[in-house]
Amino acid sequence: MRQAGRYMKEYRELREKERNFLGFCKNVELATKVSLLPLELLKVDAIIIFSDILVPLEPMGAKIEFLDGEGPKVYWDGDVKSLKRISYRDTDFVNQVIRNVKTLQKEVPVIGFCGAPFTLLSYLVEGQSSRDLRNTKLFMWGNPNYPKIMSLMVENLIEYLEGQAKAGADVLQVFDSWAMYLSYEDYSCYARDVLKPFFEELKKRINVPIIYFYRGSQSFLKEVDKLNVDAVSVDWTVDIISCMSESDKVFQGNLDPHVLYASEEVLEERVRSFLAKIPRKTGYIFNLGHGLMPDMDFKKVKLLVDIVKSFRVL
Amino acid sequence: MRQAGRYMKEYRELREKERNFLGFCKNVELATKVSLLPLELLKVDAIIIFSDILVPLEPMGAKIEFLDGEGPKVYWDGDVKSLKRISYRDTDFVNQVIRNVKTLQKEVPVIGFCGAPFTLLSYLVEGQSSRDLRNTKLFMWGNPNYPKIMSLMVENLIEYLEGQAKAGADVLQVFDSWAMYLSYEDYSCYARDVLKPFFEELKKRINVPIIYFYRGSQSFLKEVDKLNVDAVSVDWTVDIISCMSESDKVFQGNLDPHVLYASEEVLEERVRSFLAKIPRKTGYIFNLGHGLMPDMDFKKVKLLVDIVKSFRVL
Repeated sequence: MRQAGRYMKEYRELREKERNFLGFCKNVELATKVSLLPLELLKVDAIIIFSDILVPLEPMGAKIEFLDGEGPKVYWDGDVKSLKRISYRDTDFVNQVIRNVKTLQKEVPVIGFCGAPFTLLSYLVEGQSSRDLRNTKLFMWGNPNYPKIMSLMVENLIEYLEGQAKAGADVLQVFDSWAMYLSYEDYSCYARDVLKPFFEELKKRINVPIIYFYRGSQSFLKEVDKLNVDAVSVDWTVDIISCMSESDKVFQGNLDPHVLYASEEVLEERVRSFLAKIPRKTGYIFNLGHGLMPDMDFKKVKLLVDIVKSFRVL
Repeated sequence: MRQAGRYMKEYRELREKERNFLGFCKNVELATKVSLLPLELLKVDAIIIFSDILVPLEPMGAKIEFLDGEGPKVYWDGDVKSLKRISYRDTDFVNQVIRNVKTLQKEVPVIGFCGAPFTLLSYLVEGQSSRDLRNTKLFMWGNPNYPKIMSLMVENLIEYLEGQAKAGADVLQVFDSWAMYLSYEDYSCYARDVLKPFFEELKKRINVPIIYFYRGSQSFLKEVDKLNVDAVSVDWTVDIISCMSESDKVFQGNLDPHVLYASEEVLEERVRSFLAKIPRKTGYIFNLGHGLMPDMDFKKVKLLVDIVKSFRVL
């Protein structure tokens, strides 16, 4: 998450050419260049394409605005009838970035992505970042249009991801960044009624591995385990050892990204002891528990990648 | 948490008499009146005394400021030597509120409280509310004074709580509101090295039940279960049914407080179905998963209390 981003000088230079963030995502040439930066500069093992989870909300009928130094603003009139079915052609710039990245390098796999239905709903309903998602919860609990919007969201996201798979994405990741605000009870209902059919249908249509990322309590894991996904990416609050012993999924993530603010010595010591404790019996993909931040030091991110890539189990 | 607070007209009227929040906490007459409001107006089953978790930081040597409409500001020079041992007499206004509330009513038990060591450390280090507690984490990981400060904090909080117990508190609650930011790994170390000796020593010195409240992942529960506390108060992200089946502790809390923003119908339906699923075999104390908010509607809080008090298992 934010593998390419403001913490990189080269990213900031490319952003100067297109100050509008959504315009930047839609500029295939620039988005391709930026997508390739982490491979060039960090030597990562996979490229996640440069885009934003809000991209499919625009053809659905919402107006999206990114103002400098603020979070995104999403304008929707609240009328379920104003929301549209989308075609993967509506966002072909995303697919084109994937095709370009696949053509320009053959070294590493390319990850396409989207936001999860609940996380995207929260932007539609709140209109901006929120510290408690209270309006989204009220919508979920009391608005009769909730199931309708969620099934439209599921159809659209499947179409959107199918487009990315057809364009050549080797892996797809679904980001449920705001699931952490849900109660266990509500998460269970959402997992059963929305995520389960979403991933079932997605697996019928496409043939690439799927990673589901959620931020939230370890309690959610027993619901996540029932989803038809290949890997689960987790934040730093869960005990990854018990996750890996209780589930057959591949796990990803879990390192507290704040280690990147620590001294090189502390960073190195913590990353090594983190890697040493990962059980070897199942698949594990190294990743942070959440995204990189603009004020992180590029040199420390590079150091982190180097430590991970050179790590060998004794 | 915030059982008496800005959502009550009567509270706002009393606050007019003393605009400075810390001054209000120290004004024994007003703090006593406010502590009694929830019993008078809501008919709750216990009174938590009106105070603030930051109170003991002031005699320790920090400067505390509450500005209208903002979170608290805590000023500390960063020098561990400037932090002092405190006596329960330094904050005798807290004990006096307990004595008053015990004298003025005999109906319900009185709960004293303090912030947990990590949560208080975070205020000292960050100086204000933070969205990631990054400085507190860096302090924990790399500052050689971390163990020294934590053991001073533990000694002071024991002294502080012992004063409250001697003043007549029937129950003591320890609030670890910011534990949620910690990784599982860091929470485990904190629980083992700080919370465990803290509660062991507390139990030797006082003879009242102790409730530990934490916000955070269900993963933390296996560490919490090892603590010498009588009850655990949890937020809404944990699965309370599995908590209660995996631990012998009494549980408290868990209801998502955002139901108080919902319509009366939704509120009633959700609270009833919540209560219906609580297993009957072990003790459970109804509470919200976190505190009341200033913009909540008093009438809905009253409705919530009425629903809970009239609930009977069929």
